[in-house]
Amino acid sequence: MDQSLPDASCDEAAPQSADAAVTLHVCVTCLAGEDRDTVPRAGRRLHDGLVEALPRQDHPPSFRIVEVECLSNCDRGCSAALSGPGRWSYIYGDLTETAVDDLIAGATRYAATTDGLVPWRERPMIFRKGVIARIPPSI
Amino acid sequence: MDQSLPDASCDEAAPQSADAAVTLHVCVTCLAGEDRDTVPRAGRRLHDGLVEALPRQDHPPSFRIVEVECLSNCDRGCSAALSGPGRWSYIYGDLTETAVDDLIAGATRYAATTDGLVPWRERPMIFRKGVIARIPPSI
Repeated sequence: MDQSLPDASCDEAAPQSADAAVTLHVCVTCLAGEDRDTVPRAGRRLHDGLVEALPRQDHPPSFRIVEVECLSNCDRGCSAALSGPGRWSYIYGDLTETAVDDLIAGATRYAATTDGLVPWRERPMIFRKGVIARIPPSI
Repeated sequence: MDQSLPDASCDEAAPQSADAAVTLHVCVTCLAGEDRDTVPRAGRRLHDGLVEALPRQDHPPSFRIVEVECLSNCDRGCSAALSGPGRWSYIYGDLTETAVDDLIAGATRYAATTDGLVPWRERPMIFRKGVIARIPPSI
C-alpha cells in the first residue's frame, strides 16, 4: 500500500534520445509473493535487469527507466507503468525478471506512438494479459 | 478489454474553475457484473449520477468529469481515475452509484494538492480500499 511510501524515487537509469519524455516506471519495492526480507526484492531485480539490458539493444533507447516506490498494485506485482506527454498511461502487473526483453520491446513500441495506443496485435503478450489499468492523457 | 475501444470519449460534463486541469475520468462502459444488454450501463449511471450531483455542492467544482470508454479495469468496475498536471494519477475500482458523494469529496481533496498525494487519513474509504494502481506524474 502506498500510504507509507508517498514519494517515488526518481533515480533515472537510462538517459535518453528524442523521446526521453516517455518513461517506464518500475516498482522496486514489489515483493511478488516473496519474503519481505528478501534482498534484493523482486521489483528491484526486475528494474536492475532492465537497466542492464537496455544498453544492449540495437538502437538507442526511446524511453527512460525510472524506479518508483509502490505503484499501489501490490497484489499483482511486480509492476511497471508507461507514461508520456499526450499519451494514455498504462500499468502492468504479474511481471517477473523474464519480462525484461518484452518490456523493452513494448515500451519501445509505446514510445513510437503519439497517443500511447499500440495496436493490440503489436503488444507483447505480457501487456495483453498483464494490463491492470489505463488512464487517459492529461489535456 | 480496451483493444476494441481504443479511443476515449472526451465529452466534458462539468466545466471549470481554477483547477480545471484536474480530471475525474469515469468509465461509462463498465458493466460491473450486470448483463451486457443493461441500459444504461452501471458505469454510465455512475457518471450521470456524478454529473447530476456536482452542481449541488457548496463550492464550485475544482475538477471536471470526463467520460471514458474503458479504463482496462473491467474485472473490478465500475472504474474511475483521477489525473492532473504534475500529479500522481490514481485509478479506483469496485465503485457503485452509492460512491458519488465520496468520489466528489475525494476528487476535491485531490484537486487541492499540487502532487496528487492526499494524506491517507483524508482519503475516502472507497479510495483506500478501491485503489487499483497509481502512476507517477510525467516529468
